[in-house]
Amino acid sequence: MPQSIRDEILAVLLDRQPNYLSGEELSHKVGVSRAAIWKHMEELRAGGYEIEAKPRSGYRLVYRPDRVAPEEIYSHLQTKRFGREIQYQNHTPSTQIIAHQWAKEDAPEGAVVIADEQGDGKGRLGRVWHSPPRTGIWMSLILRPPIALQSASHLTILTSVGIKRGIERVTGLDIQIKWPNDLLIVGKKVCGVLTEIRGEQDCIHYAIIGIGMNVNTKKQDFPKEILDIATSLTIELGGDIHRATLIAAVLEELEECYERYLQEGFQTIQQEWESSAYKMNQMITVRTPQGNHTGILKGLYDTGALKLQVDQGTIAIYSAEIDIEKY
Amino acid sequence: MPQSIRDEILAVLLDRQPNYLSGEELSHKVGVSRAAIWKHMEELRAGGYEIEAKPRSGYRLVYRPDRVAPEEIYSHLQTKRFGREIQYQNHTPSTQIIAHQWAKEDAPEGAVVIADEQGDGKGRLGRVWHSPPRTGIWMSLILRPPIALQSASHLTILTSVGIKRGIERVTGLDIQIKWPNDLLIVGKKVCGVLTEIRGEQDCIHYAIIGIGMNVNTKKQDFPKEILDIATSLTIELGGDIHRATLIAAVLEELEECYERYLQEGFQTIQQEWESSAYKMNQMITVRTPQGNHTGILKGLYDTGALKLQVDQGTIAIYSAEIDIEKY
Repeated sequence: MPQSIRDEILAVLLDRQPNYLSGEELSHKVGVSRAAIWKHMEELRAGGYEIEAKPRSGYRLVYRPDRVAPEEIYSHLQTKRFGREIQYQNHTPSTQIIAHQWAKEDAPEGAVVIADEQGDGKGRLGRVWHSPPRTGIWMSLILRPPIALQSASHLTILTSVGIKRGIERVTGLDIQIKWPNDLLIVGKKVCGVLTEIRGEQDCIHYAIIGIGMNVNTKKQDFPKEILDIATSLTIELGGDIHRATLIAAVLEELEECYERYLQEGFQTIQQEWESSAYKMNQMITVRTPQGNHTGILKGLYDTGALKLQVDQGTIAIYSAEIDIEKY
Repeated sequence: MPQSIRDEILAVLLDRQPNYLSGEELSHKVGVSRAAIWKHMEELRAGGYEIEAKPRSGYRLVYRPDRVAPEEIYSHLQTKRFGREIQYQNHTPSTQIIAHQWAKEDAPEGAVVIADEQGDGKGRLGRVWHSPPRTGIWMSLILRPPIALQSASHLTILTSVGIKRGIERVTGLDIQIKWPNDLLIVGKKVCGVLTEIRGEQDCIHYAIIGIGMNVNTKKQDFPKEILDIATSLTIELGGDIHRATLIAAVLEELEECYERYLQEGFQTIQQEWESSAYKMNQMITVRTPQGNHTGILKGLYDTGALKLQVDQGTIAIYSAEIDIEKY
């Protein structure tokens, strides 16, 4: 459901690519005059789109800038609620901060804050997340899940599954999920999830799901000290990715996972997660504030805790770090 | 550890009650001149204290107003951290709101916001809490517990146990705990707990424990429609209670429960809770968003969920209402 005349024109041009579309047909489909079409075309060109206009053939879209603005996303999006309302920022300190404010006001469930550049991106436990301009996806999704506070970690788990499916659908790359909140390609981090919760003793008021993904980041854009533990989709794929297409795919898969979770419970999400888990059935060491545990990763408990098989049996890990082995 | 000269003078006078204390001894104990003592005495009198001054005998405290201001609380308090920093308000819309702001800034663990009157007190799930002026305890305690988000409901449970112990110590009344967040006397509500959580997927940033207690509320102060489900300590006891003394006792018991929980885990707290639980081993009906369950209340799971024995075995209830039977 595009939101403006400009979105509609773009959607029709995208749909017809690489062929031409006559001004008359375009005017008819969108329901505005040919003069209005011409005006909107100029605006699209000013926004970086290259639109060829050929006498007797009509208009043809020849180049789309890699923008993550709402009109690009809406033109790809097939969801009911996720991403149906977008706040877009060229630059922001953190999409999480804007999303918290919006959630306190009147944001509907599924509303998304997206930025092209983050000045002060947050990782888990207050860490800095490196977010260079126009190369990644930095977005925050607002959820109002009718679940117990005890189940909050399910949200991070289903988000990881949804993102994995979205990336795999668009790129064909094989994604692993590292507990609690990272996505990896061949053992290197490509995406992180930060789930922030506002709630009371037995319910969640709202959750902000922050997603930071390295998409078109080149090797030289990464700080040297993280090059052997971090990667991007373009490095692994050998070509650039249209970010708005990827965002739409991720939002669609997230919506599917979220609705399935609310309707059917955690079980199928848990199975998908376990089938993609980094180091599943292998020996790992987890670092917790109370000390380290070494054991075999056996998947998840239905609470979302990590199941670790140690000498004494299996133990539940709620909060810990698993180190990535360097390749 | 009193905070000001005035607190120290008050503490010395309280300690000597009902006997006299010479101006010379007072001056010596507090370490200020007799002229300064006289000035502080005048301030205490202006605050509602009645202090008798008798030639050749000295000073004697004869009346203390029932105030919940810090100097009254400090003079009774034997804690390490809880209540060591207090923000006091004569009137505030909600102590929870002030506590959230303070926690985001630099409040140390154990800091407390106390008000004599709340204009817009909050109950669980956004409900209104009736808080008439100068009759109750309306306070919010800031905690920074190093526990998993999944364990957040433990905080409400240990708070209920601590408050129960504090009230019983001061009044001798028998308190029952009603899951998830109420304290009752003979089946009528006397205190409510509201635990608000800020966190991310696997940890708690901070928790605000809101406590609303009907202390010196008279029958005529309650709205008619809640008279058969609510009560106050003075109604049950037949006499007024010095609120600052009660606050100090509650903070001491809360600190003991909290430290025991962090050091030894949930088990002994759980046992205390179960030994005081309303309707323990009796048939109850709980109302959840997914429907009603009727069964026998068997206590708590170690997650803090309610354990209900139904035909199919025992089930865990995370979020629900238990109706109070009317007497």
